[in-house]
Amino acid sequence: MKIAKNTPVSKTAKKKKSPPVKKISAKAAKGLIIVITGNGKGKTTSAFGQALRAIGQGYKVFILQFMKGREYGEFIAAEKYLPNLTIRKSGLDSFVMRGKPAAIDIELAQKGLDTARKAIMSGKYDMVILDEINVALDFKLIKLKEVLEMIKSKPPVLNLILTGRYAAKEIIKIANTVSEVQEIKHHYNAGIKDRAGIEY
Amino acid sequence: MKIAKNTPVSKTAKKKKSPPVKKISAKAAKGLIIVITGNGKGKTTSAFGQALRAIGQGYKVFILQFMKGREYGEFIAAEKYLPNLTIRKSGLDSFVMRGKPAAIDIELAQKGLDTARKAIMSGKYDMVILDEINVALDFKLIKLKEVLEMIKSKPPVLNLILTGRYAAKEIIKIANTVSEVQEIKHHYNAGIKDRAGIEY
Repeated sequence: MKIAKNTPVSKTAKKKKSPPVKKISAKAAKGLIIVITGNGKGKTTSAFGQALRAIGQGYKVFILQFMKGREYGEFIAAEKYLPNLTIRKSGLDSFVMRGKPAAIDIELAQKGLDTARKAIMSGKYDMVILDEINVALDFKLIKLKEVLEMIKSKPPVLNLILTGRYAAKEIIKIANTVSEVQEIKHHYNAGIKDRAGIEY
Repeated sequence: MKIAKNTPVSKTAKKKKSPPVKKISAKAAKGLIIVITGNGKGKTTSAFGQALRAIGQGYKVFILQFMKGREYGEFIAAEKYLPNLTIRKSGLDSFVMRGKPAAIDIELAQKGLDTARKAIMSGKYDMVILDEINVALDFKLIKLKEVLEMIKSKPPVLNLILTGRYAAKEIIKIANTVSEVQEIKHHYNAGIKDRAGIEY
């Protein structure tokens, strides 16, 4: 048994180089469909952490963020520092009113879905993350039928992660793994506001 | 309202440079204590995604992984690619038997706790993540009293994240935010085994 050393990150280790990409063959493993839903904090961060883990293992990852126009910290860091990752967002800076989406919100979500579908079918990625797609569905910005068809037609080896509260039961049904992040406590309830590095 | 563009990551954007570190002053915000617990998949990845978000916003982050000797994908990627992050692990490659820890498991967890305490008290970090510390506590590798004292004596501005199932009620009590990741479904139950990029 190897005893772990407490090795701090060395400057040299930080040199940004693309690692050899480990191709996941159909033989190696069937891709998983993972859903991260629930009302608690930590769904999008969980998906990005999963992307970080996958990249560390040589995966190529694509992330599409629905309903997010603003550049969140994870977007900034992922774009700046992570190799083998393509990240796009398709939304506005403003929040979408549930049940009353503006035409532009629908248009952008639909464009996001088209971009996601192309990435999924391209065969260029080992993992595709569709961040907040569950909310885009719940808000009726995109059609469940289209999303289910996209999921069912994905390359077998592709790992697909769908995040956001209100995951549709039809998606939960075809998923291999579903985690529900439940809010036990949230600092919002103590009047603590959003802040950079925590909420975005 | 700015319409988000679907901009792929450019090679040039990938150049690794440390961003200007945004100092979080006590005036700016009180640091949060965030607990990520539960039996579902996505606790460690959630903490690493939170680190990615924080780094994107200029935080300096320290991560201590308890009970992990193996280099998980997130460890490899974080160490290779992320600036303003120090990551250490303190454990063995083997799994610890609950209730029957070996002397070496206790020794390494205690060393990890000492390392974490130094990092917390150093004032050098805006966020400290103690990965799997809840499990180390539940397995009696470290003492709850010591951990509670460490948390209570942290610099006010420091954001502290504690992950792992079986979070102690005393820790949940003093936390600002607690998310419980519940397993609704897991591919283990379909006989799908651990794989690089997904579980490690």
